[in-house]
Amino acid sequence: MMENPTKFIVEPGKQEVYIIREFDYPVGMVFNAHADPDLLVQWLGPDNRKVKIDYYDSRTGGSYRYLILSQAGKEVAAFNGVIHECTFPERIMQTFEYEGLPQRGHVSLDTMIFEELPGNKTKLTIHSVFRSLADRDGMMQSGVETGVNEGYVKLEKLLGVMSSIAG
Amino acid sequence: MMENPTKFIVEPGKQEVYIIREFDYPVGMVFNAHADPDLLVQWLGPDNRKVKIDYYDSRTGGSYRYLILSQAGKEVAAFNGVIHECTFPERIMQTFEYEGLPQRGHVSLDTMIFEELPGNKTKLTIHSVFRSLADRDGMMQSGVETGVNEGYVKLEKLLGVMSSIAG
Repeated sequence: MMENPTKFIVEPGKQEVYIIREFDYPVGMVFNAHADPDLLVQWLGPDNRKVKIDYYDSRTGGSYRYLILSQAGKEVAAFNGVIHECTFPERIMQTFEYEGLPQRGHVSLDTMIFEELPGNKTKLTIHSVFRSLADRDGMMQSGVETGVNEGYVKLEKLLGVMSSIAG
Repeated sequence: MMENPTKFIVEPGKQEVYIIREFDYPVGMVFNAHADPDLLVQWLGPDNRKVKIDYYDSRTGGSYRYLILSQAGKEVAAFNGVIHECTFPERIMQTFEYEGLPQRGHVSLDTMIFEELPGNKTKLTIHSVFRSLADRDGMMQSGVETGVNEGYVKLEKLLGVMSSIAG
């Protein structure tokens, strides 16, 4: 089966990024794979990394922090944020900060929209707004495209397993 | 005494706004007037309105909601958000959503930087990033400049009272 493509929209001069992808699974399932930390750790991030949850209170008004580990278990990055809105099965809005920068404050506001498509499929649109063009370009240059793509391949597989258990 | 001016920087085509103002009072005092809801209600908003706190957990990972009331006590607006960072006396980063729009999701990410100036003065820089240019322009057209200016005149008076009590 061909993988669904991931589309990155990065317009010159705009302090925002769109990431758009379809999944061949129902919207509630795709939403839960993003909102439930026990599912999120199974697919998020690039192939050669693991995710470890520090805390994840996945609700409107909640907050989260997770670590990215090497296969050997060494911490390579950490991210945290607060959850402005978590509405099943349609929308998650949250802040996002990479902790590895020299100063704090390079935060983005990320909106994930989950839309039902015909045939029990789902369209996911992630819209990230940055505090500056430099913040956006820094994020894009960090290899995020590879990591996001590799994560989504793992997510498709996880959704396949969830679907076979549910079915 | 001349009031300190409030500067709005609203560049064409950018989905952001800067609001910059100085206060003739110490940075810790100006910070607390923004972070303590019991102080915030005494100055926030335009002259002909009152603020009523629904909830305000003023810390990193906290969240807030407040109402704007007419003098007669009728609710005219409501706002809510989550607090990404609240670090005394230098920075507050939070989301901000006006609840009166037909759809949810028109959220901004607001960063308040409090800087100490010589002579026990404070420079406040608010940087708001919006999800679209339309969101930004909608906010600017809502009369926010008048409300912010009137609020800051009340804040200067409150800081004067706090200062005379502390001194």
